[in-house]
Amino acid sequence: MVTEATAATTSVLGSAPPALDRLKSLLLEASDLSSAASVLRWDQSTFMPSGGAAARGRQLSRLSEIAHQRSTDPGIGELLDALRSYAENIDPMADDARLLAVTRRDFERAVRIPADFIARDSAASSASYSAWVKARPAGDFAAMRPHLEKTLDLSREYAAFFPGYDHIIDPLIGPDEGVTAEETKALFKTLRVALVPMVRTIAEQTETSDACLRKHYPSAQQLTFATQVARDMGYDLTRGRLDLTAHPFMIRFGADDVRITTRVREDDLSDCLFSVWHEAGHAFYELGVSRDLNPPIAGGTSPGVHESQSRLWENLVGRSRGFWEHYYPALQREFPDQLNSVSLDTFYRAINKVSRSLIRTDADELTYNLHVMIRFDLECDLLEGRLAVKDLPDAWNARYQSDLGVVAPDHSNGVLQDVHWYAGTLGGGFQGYTIGNVLSAQFYNAALRAHPEITADIAAGRFETLHSWLKDNVYQHGRKFGVHDLVSQATGSKMRIEPYIDYLRTKYSGLYAL
Amino acid sequence: MVTEATAATTSVLGSAPPALDRLKSLLLEASDLSSAASVLRWDQSTFMPSGGAAARGRQLSRLSEIAHQRSTDPGIGELLDALRSYAENIDPMADDARLLAVTRRDFERAVRIPADFIARDSAASSASYSAWVKARPAGDFAAMRPHLEKTLDLSREYAAFFPGYDHIIDPLIGPDEGVTAEETKALFKTLRVALVPMVRTIAEQTETSDACLRKHYPSAQQLTFATQVARDMGYDLTRGRLDLTAHPFMIRFGADDVRITTRVREDDLSDCLFSVWHEAGHAFYELGVSRDLNPPIAGGTSPGVHESQSRLWENLVGRSRGFWEHYYPALQREFPDQLNSVSLDTFYRAINKVSRSLIRTDADELTYNLHVMIRFDLECDLLEGRLAVKDLPDAWNARYQSDLGVVAPDHSNGVLQDVHWYAGTLGGGFQGYTIGNVLSAQFYNAALRAHPEITADIAAGRFETLHSWLKDNVYQHGRKFGVHDLVSQATGSKMRIEPYIDYLRTKYSGLYAL
Repeated sequence: MVTEATAATTSVLGSAPPALDRLKSLLLEASDLSSAASVLRWDQSTFMPSGGAAARGRQLSRLSEIAHQRSTDPGIGELLDALRSYAENIDPMADDARLLAVTRRDFERAVRIPADFIARDSAASSASYSAWVKARPAGDFAAMRPHLEKTLDLSREYAAFFPGYDHIIDPLIGPDEGVTAEETKALFKTLRVALVPMVRTIAEQTETSDACLRKHYPSAQQLTFATQVARDMGYDLTRGRLDLTAHPFMIRFGADDVRITTRVREDDLSDCLFSVWHEAGHAFYELGVSRDLNPPIAGGTSPGVHESQSRLWENLVGRSRGFWEHYYPALQREFPDQLNSVSLDTFYRAINKVSRSLIRTDADELTYNLHVMIRFDLECDLLEGRLAVKDLPDAWNARYQSDLGVVAPDHSNGVLQDVHWYAGTLGGGFQGYTIGNVLSAQFYNAALRAHPEITADIAAGRFETLHSWLKDNVYQHGRKFGVHDLVSQATGSKMRIEPYIDYLRTKYSGLYAL
Repeated sequence: MVTEATAATTSVLGSAPPALDRLKSLLLEASDLSSAASVLRWDQSTFMPSGGAAARGRQLSRLSEIAHQRSTDPGIGELLDALRSYAENIDPMADDARLLAVTRRDFERAVRIPADFIARDSAASSASYSAWVKARPAGDFAAMRPHLEKTLDLSREYAAFFPGYDHIIDPLIGPDEGVTAEETKALFKTLRVALVPMVRTIAEQTETSDACLRKHYPSAQQLTFATQVARDMGYDLTRGRLDLTAHPFMIRFGADDVRITTRVREDDLSDCLFSVWHEAGHAFYELGVSRDLNPPIAGGTSPGVHESQSRLWENLVGRSRGFWEHYYPALQREFPDQLNSVSLDTFYRAINKVSRSLIRTDADELTYNLHVMIRFDLECDLLEGRLAVKDLPDAWNARYQSDLGVVAPDHSNGVLQDVHWYAGTLGGGFQGYTIGNVLSAQFYNAALRAHPEITADIAAGRFETLHSWLKDNVYQHGRKFGVHDLVSQATGSKMRIEPYIDYLRTKYSGLYAL
């Protein structure tokens, strides 16, 4: 696509050479094609009639192949080479220097993956996702087994493009996460030591009732309330929208089109509300990236940091006492029959009820991490060949029995519950959730240190100060920095688990005898 | 993309050579990329937040450019050349022979259009459409003037890629229509001679009241009723869906994903109902194309034939007395307060009220054609340089005054009312509507000759026989045949205006003294 790259790179030192503009233009084009594929995926999950599946699979596979061709265009490599001396002579923290560094990392990674793999992987993902949409409600693991076996094969094939890794999951996690399998295992070990006794102590106490959340809550009203609060938090519906899908997600089509989805259960008030605010947290991050940044750094960095932003709004804000001091009266006005006789205290306890349960996305803040650890360990077992796909349901149930003391009555509530393994991702999907939990507390702590008034603000339904700290310290930087650098700059220290454990201890001491 | 095409084309005479498979695979890929662009356009019109406009314009422009590159891939030309002797030795009416003939025609046409033109045209269309969505309600022609000037320039530039035309509109109409500017002018002249006296005679009579349609009809109920009837007609919601847009349209993403849109006015019952059935008619055509056909012949032929299918369901079925003998009781049950005191006769007269009015899409069957002729003539004037864009609103109003005796109070109801000129099409957009009207009667006549029971079927809410005749004689053939061949084969005669004029005379003699 690009020829004679070097001819255009003569530049006065310090001023951006023409080759940089050409590189940015190529990168924007590749990003636009990826965004086009995202629109097709969003439609596939939201509105596409079932008849559309076959053609959509083909369309996505074509687009993924073209996007991959563009991102591995030898012209990018030539331009990067031509710009090497320019990059070495500017501030290494400057946008352009980071753009070039990240582009080189992405490029060197992308060129290792053959185009035909991308096409096969994309087609397999589409087929698997379509099958899962039917198999999950039916609890039909047998229908998913061939898809998952194929996904496992593809995941191994992918890892093999990056020989020399410490752990087979590392290439699947990708360099963007910046937290390796070894670091993850160490983190999970420390967390498990703190969590397990807390969960055990709580399990021995009288069970908190969440009956107030299990009444009939009409879908439309839940969506109205959740959306209004998301708007208060800062979600701008001229730059996004909210739709319904089987599994909630956030998706970016451009700097000013970042959409979220949710699901609604009429017999569970919490699912829709916290899903919307979780996804809104992801969207705030994407919408807050500096407009000065170009692809590929014009988007959030690392799954773990992304998840820290969603969990911060879902949990540290949305499940806090102060937040509900402000919003509970409004929720009662929306649902007077269901909630007028329920005290704020009862409601607050209900939304923070700890219980050893089956579904990750319904889990409380404490046990959530145990769900993640089960999945991470099973993924390691699958990828390392210690576990066959056919034995996965049994292994799943055994781990739930031993870690959480519960066994799913069917695969819908067990091994089929999460989309991740059935939409073409193995190895890179779950650990980021717990890394996100850990980082959410570290970021929130830093924000509170800088602006102690944030607590009172939230109790008054005001989010501007928190938003603005996050924008300055996290959002605006996009993918300029990896997780370790970003965390150090924003919080003044390395990634630390203590703020998260302190947060959990303080919060749950107020709810249970610990 | 394709090299050494000739190496693969040695074939046993009569059996499809490998080159044909390779050609079909390339054509399917090009079609998939066009469909991907269609998904982005559909989203742009239905659900995209306003912030998404800039990125969407870029994405569409990239995709259009790539789709154009694929459809002009020199490999297609090489394969066509290599397949020439194969094509000459098979039945010229066989699918493969027609595929090769249509592909060659498309290819020879497409290679004349430079890729940069496609990108500029697509970007200009996106920008113009986004501007029109705001300018139309505001009646702001000044905001659209630069866009329309650009569209006019681009239309002229496009026509200039095809030197030697008889009329500048001919290349813009395209070979697919198969009805040239000269043929169109002759057709319009004959029609005008029949229509103008009918409209004048009716205008002199006491005005029919359509007050029963102008009550308050809640949007959701209109959509429910319109959708249910569309399903009865045969629209399968697992192979399509219905959404809301400023301007109704049908769009195809694949053989089993053909969507329609409508708009709803709560103070006008007819807009939503007839728009839905109109667009459903277009969708039936696309959904009925034989699965044996490959792109580029796996879709409806010619705008005029397409419109004949929509108008047939909208008017010849949907505005017929028999249809409402069956459906009016159901409509009354949906809207008892509004319609229980309104007789079927009053309702039938209301939906067929002839009046000289401002809005094409609201126009009755008779005056509709006068709206089309105004636009066609103005387009000729613009393209031939007899009319400047700045003078278009005055010219528009003058023609409405002289032809229909009405002048729009604002540009929203005047020159800005239709999307066509503001979404990047000049010259090829309107005349197909009247050609469609003419053909709708010719096809319907032929269906009635073959199956006289269709009239009674419709009065009993049964559409299978009509549907099945249309599928056999029109839908299944896709783009295998052009308009003239298709019409001859389906109806046993050339395109004729008499069935349409007879239909109008018979129907309107029952409603007015003619």
